[in-house]
Amino acid sequence: MRTAIRVTVWNEYRHELNSEAVRQIYPNGIHNALAKPLRDNGFDVRTATLDEPEHGLTDDVLNSTDVLIWWGHMAHQEVDDAIVAKVVERVLHGMGLIVLHSGHFSKVFKRLMGTSCDLKWRESGENERLWVVSPSHPIVDGIGEFVELEHEEMYGEHFDIPTPDEVVFVSWFKGGEVFRSGCTFRRGRGKIFYFRPGHETHPTYHHEQIQRVIVNAVRWANPRCGPIPVYGNAQPLET
Amino acid sequence: MRTAIRVTVWNEYRHELNSEAVRQIYPNGIHNALAKPLRDNGFDVRTATLDEPEHGLTDDVLNSTDVLIWWGHMAHQEVDDAIVAKVVERVLHGMGLIVLHSGHFSKVFKRLMGTSCDLKWRESGENERLWVVSPSHPIVDGIGEFVELEHEEMYGEHFDIPTPDEVVFVSWFKGGEVFRSGCTFRRGRGKIFYFRPGHETHPTYHHEQIQRVIVNAVRWANPRCGPIPVYGNAQPLET
Amino acid sequence: MRTAIRVTVWNEYRHELNSEAVRQIYPNGIHNALAKPLRDNGFDVRTATLDEPEHGLTDDVLNSTDVLIWWGHMAHQEVDDAIVAKVVERVLHGMGLIVLHSGHFSKVFKRLMGTSCDLKWRESGENERLWVVSPSHPIVDGIGEFVELEHEEMYGEHFDIPTPDEVVFVSWFKGGEVFRSGCTFRRGRGKIFYFRPGHETHPTYHHEQIQRVIVNAVRWANPRCGPIPVYGNAQPLET
Amino acid sequence: MRTAIRVTVWNEYRHELNSEAVRQIYPNGIHNALAKPLRDNGFDVRTATLDEPEHGLTDDVLNSTDVLIWWGHMAHQEVDDAIVAKVVERVLHGMGLIVLHSGHFSKVFKRLMGTSCDLKWRESGENERLWVVSPSHPIVDGIGEFVELEHEEMYGEHFDIPTPDEVVFVSWFKGGEVFRSGCTFRRGRGKIFYFRPGHETHPTYHHEQIQRVIVNAVRWANPRCGPIPVYGNAQPLET
Repeated sequence: MRTAIRVTVWNEYRHELNSEAVRQIYPNGIHNALAKPLRDNGFDVRTATLDEPEHGLTDDVLNSTDVLIWWGHMAHQEVDDAIVAKVVERVLHGMGLIVLHSGHFSKVFKRLMGTSCDLKWRESGENERLWVVSPSHPIVDGIGEFVELEHEEMYGEHFDIPTPDEVVFVSWFKGGEVFRSGCTFRRGRGKIFYFRPGHETHPTYHHEQIQRVIVNAVRWANPRCGPIPVYGNAQPLET
Repeated sequence: MRTAIRVTVWNEYRHELNSEAVRQIYPNGIHNALAKPLRDNGFDVRTATLDEPEHGLTDDVLNSTDVLIWWGHMAHQEVDDAIVAKVVERVLHGMGLIVLHSGHFSKVFKRLMGTSCDLKWRESGENERLWVVSPSHPIVDGIGEFVELEHEEMYGEHFDIPTPDEVVFVSWFKGGEVFRSGCTFRRGRGKIFYFRPGHETHPTYHHEQIQRVIVNAVRWANPRCGPIPVYGNAQPLET
Repeated sequence: MRTAIRVTVWNEYRHELNSEAVRQIYPNGIHNALAKPLRDNGFDVRTATLDEPEHGLTDDVLNSTDVLIWWGHMAHQEVDDAIVAKVVERVLHGMGLIVLHSGHFSKVFKRLMGTSCDLKWRESGENERLWVVSPSHPIVDGIGEFVELEHEEMYGEHFDIPTPDEVVFVSWFKGGEVFRSGCTFRRGRGKIFYFRPGHETHPTYHHEQIQRVIVNAVRWANPRCGPIPVYGNAQPLET
Repeated sequence: MRTAIRVTVWNEYRHELNSEAVRQIYPNGIHNALAKPLRDNGFDVRTATLDEPEHGLTDDVLNSTDVLIWWGHMAHQEVDDAIVAKVVERVLHGMGLIVLHSGHFSKVFKRLMGTSCDLKWRESGENERLWVVSPSHPIVDGIGEFVELEHEEMYGEHFDIPTPDEVVFVSWFKGGEVFRSGCTFRRGRGKIFYFRPGHETHPTYHHEQIQRVIVNAVRWANPRCGPIPVYGNAQPLET
């Protein structure tokens, strides 16, 4: 019998403590808002936050995580380099990784991408429309032609990432910008999905279609039993 | 409850009737050899062959097929253009397609690719080693670093296909050639996997790892409930 | 000494004859408007139109064309299938192809893509902003972060094309849509660039930045002296 | 008038000093062997080596380099992290980078890739055949269907790199392995080409076709005047 996918939702968990406006939207933190639909879909879900010991990402936690979800914003620099190195290593060894919104600037994502991951941004609560450009992708199972969010922070191109393996969503913003909002990357034996929406001052993670995308992404990023490549000195296979 | 994936295995079914050597390897035809492991994995499997009315691909069959597997070689030109058009249309509307070996020259594959699909070839029964170059891909679930086939026909580069979305396998041949042996392509809402091995004079489709790849590919190509894009004249979404 | 790149600009050339509004914008036809900046850049430029014998695309013309530019709209069906086959063959043998705007529905482009090439559209003269998403691409040499067009026809996703090799531009439209507006595809030994803008009722091809993109695309698509693959039966290279 | 492309050839330059066998092949160092055909093609070429101050990569040198070529092997760890950071930054700002052979394990390449860049290897002087799989690519201008090297070190898959933007060469090795030997990557505004051959004990860089590939790669990687993206807080373009 196949066991449940083990998901760890990591959240910086500062805005919710510092801002009444954010707390009203996410009274139990973004991590618990993200965790709920994942639990409802039968995944085995834990949460972890920056201010826990080892940021909640102990070896035990990382080694028993199939897919890690990452939300961070104001405190990227406080994430310990040793933990970052462990997370990156786990991804290269197969752990799935879903990076949300301002996580584009996290140490983990930048290390895995190798680029600045910079972009344009504007906090004006304008509407965003995420258009599906890859309709056969498993990440858009159950999604319509687009997902519309009434109020979101704007992120605009150029987004300084490596060429994505697949672009699943492209966003339209009222102010005149576009953005590659849903991108996949394979790194080592791990799969990575970057998903743009989720500014802390908007109720984006309560949106049913956004939840569905993240649930789909967890299934997509869940590691398979593919080959474990052997590296280093090798004897010839032919004689 | 999720119902079983409905697979139709299409086979030209001429070599088996014309050649004692081929018949010894595939006494019930290549289609039935391909069907067995698919049935063992719980798929709902039918077969269809060239010399049946409408090549066995009636509207009813096509409309109730989730994934079509295609093996053809000596009689590509006998496949009716009207059936080809229907198969292509079904793929663009979401049906998965797995094209095997000499199917690279089938009308269906060439129409979907838009190129000549030509390649180098040699029937000398040399050994082939299919190396996995995308270890996190679901198509190599349960597969080792490579699959080795003792005797196969050689296919060599340049393989005149569009840039694949993903290259999963690259083959090595004793005579000195390489080949992109496992390639994925998204077309419309359908997913296509080209898989090189399977010359009729070798028992390739009895090989357990080859069977596993095809089973994986069926799961990967199975259509999802993604968006059905609306085309044509469109009213503005903003006012 | 390197000789000039030989460009043939093909135009349907019907709107300009049938419509006074279009004629005011392109008094000598879209083909001549396109030809001018190409000539100014030192290319050896000819034009050809639908109503010439063989649509102006004789064997002599095709065989001495390095890069073909294609604009068509209302009369795709009148393009002779034999000429289409020759153009496709020439592309596969190395001729560059630049498909403009409504040429997405031309027989040539659909044959080379293998998909419906369908999309959303709206003629309301709204503004378009083409964002560069691949800033190191030779096609955007001399181009700013975006190109803005005051009035254009809208094309919206989903654009039913194969996954492009490279996406160079993504468009924003005031009405709420996005579009992959500049896409490259390698097919056979030929390079293809699809470039969205250029509705006949707007002066798009007089826009300096649009002209620059097309000039760059010609240089990019110009065939090189790469290998001419040998196909068919092959002797082993190893003994 | 277009000025010459400014190339800096960086070489670790240790094997040539420590080994008589290597010195016989490259009496003036690998860097000078690489520099010669580049100069013959009209480029403005400098060399730099590990044991020079700042490894020969001062700010002045880096800021006046269009394309950097990198050869390193036994002393990757001795390359100063501050210099590595500057090189990476220059690539992201547009400098082309050509990484040769064992440079796959250089700090610069690993930082830009974000993966382990590991692989299989064997020093047995077996023959290598580099097959062209992208015949329209400018990097194979003037190259035949394959390049054959009589004696080379083997590198085998899995090569732990991100999915390349383009795979230009795939190698065949007598011992039974394959390898993606010529790969392109866009990072920031810079273009990167990884090219496999060039073990220090074989005269690979004296091979005319190998030299031609590197000359082509320099032209391909030479930065263009594309847009310089503006990042950070942005005012709306629409009102």
